[in-house]
Amino acid sequence: MTLSIWALDGIGEVRAGDDLVALIGAAVADSLDDGDILVITSKIISKAEGRIVAAADREDAITAETVRLVARREYPGGVTRIVENRLGVVGAAAGVDASNTDEGTVLLLPLDPDASAREIATGIRSLTGREIGVIVSDTLGRPWREGQTDVAIGAAGVHVFDDLRGTVDASGKPLAVTQPCLADELAAATDLVKGKASGRPVAVVRGLARIVGELDLPGASSIVRPAERDMFRLGTDEAIAEGREAGYAEGYADGFSEGRAEA
Amino acid sequence: MTLSIWALDGIGEVRAGDDLVALIGAAVADSLDDGDILVITSKIISKAEGRIVAAADREDAITAETVRLVARREYPGGVTRIVENRLGVVGAAAGVDASNTDEGTVLLLPLDPDASAREIATGIRSLTGREIGVIVSDTLGRPWREGQTDVAIGAAGVHVFDDLRGTVDASGKPLAVTQPCLADELAAATDLVKGKASGRPVAVVRGLARIVGELDLPGASSIVRPAERDMFRLGTDEAIAEGREAGYAEGYADGFSEGRAEA
Repeated sequence: MTLSIWALDGIGEVRAGDDLVALIGAAVADSLDDGDILVITSKIISKAEGRIVAAADREDAITAETVRLVARREYPGGVTRIVENRLGVVGAAAGVDASNTDEGTVLLLPLDPDASAREIATGIRSLTGREIGVIVSDTLGRPWREGQTDVAIGAAGVHVFDDLRGTVDASGKPLAVTQPCLADELAAATDLVKGKASGRPVAVVRGLARIVGELDLPGASSIVRPAERDMFRLGTDEAIAEGREAGYAEGYADGFSEGRAEA
Repeated sequence: MTLSIWALDGIGEVRAGDDLVALIGAAVADSLDDGDILVITSKIISKAEGRIVAAADREDAITAETVRLVARREYPGGVTRIVENRLGVVGAAAGVDASNTDEGTVLLLPLDPDASAREIATGIRSLTGREIGVIVSDTLGRPWREGQTDVAIGAAGVHVFDDLRGTVDASGKPLAVTQPCLADELAAATDLVKGKASGRPVAVVRGLARIVGELDLPGASSIVRPAERDMFRLGTDEAIAEGREAGYAEGYADGFSEGRAEA
């Protein structure tokens, strides 16, 4: 089995109100096969949806997109906020993006990338007659490792996990907790051909028909781990501050009564 | 540009002392081109290096491989430790692995995956006359997102980052902090063809000759972000406990003197 991955030429600049199914459909022409997966950079979906706000509001835009502050760090040049956004995705600046946009504007993430993925997959399936899948990708930093990788924030018609729990490895032992995140791996793989500055926001992956399926498969929202089950629901400094405040109050109460008793 | 990715057949079971250059060389035969990248599952390097210990020592093995405990959580069935290992990589169980190993044994990570990558790249270049790159991959979970992806823990002859800092995007604005981690994206991409249970631990990526270079390029150790620069250097519960302890002591001292003064 060989995987082939290429970026589509000819999508061009996307503007509010553009019909992405028509644009992508024209770019793929009749080149798609059953089982192909389209990986679409979320930026062009945001642009088609008109999710553009004035850059003067960047910090306000981040705040509006934020469900929960995870960590915050001030630098000489500004501040970085790691937040959980409306979609449950944890990342810097809630996905509010100032690159690849017109001067003076920033781009918000698509309103509902799983719904966008489903809409585009439905349209492209109908246009081409091919059973294809769609992933919507975004670029995320990560703890402990420098740089960024692309991950999936939307998906339709693709199994986002290769659920190996219950299967056995080559030596016959159960692969107890192994659940490769195919959707994130597809997003990462296609970043290698799309590039950030090339103006080629859509890539095709051929060779994984086994993971393409019905349009009502769970979307990328199923990748989000709820904060209460996460060991890193707060940044270290924020958690230390939270603990310190609670500890101070407890210590003060204990110390106060001990001090009074001793006096 | 099309990227082609396939897994090599015929590597078979690797045993301590096996010559990986000879094994991989036989599997690639004369199929490699200049600019190809081999992505090798770390397990087979560990096996060739004889990094196998008795499973009775699993917790001891994890402790021995651990430089720093990041987070710890107890479950009904046991305990999960997220730790920084010898290599600076933060992950569950320090990479100590009980899958794909003989019953009663666990596998440690390679001693120095960057050195292993360099050794294999040197050997394969010499054997085939092709200027190839090598990535050593491992499977890691991550905060905030379910499932795992493969990442790079070793690299040689490959630019591990696509350093876009200083370049501009399609609309002419600087891509200030963008630094895609190519090595991790390559590892993720090849997991899609290698599979966890298939016994095909080596994949070839063709089409990225532009990122293949000298063997003394920085290895995967350059991906590691030092803990002091990381916003998630401790798990949330661990950081809260640390803060609480410090806060309690401060509060107690303040409360004690206030209480005595008031009495």
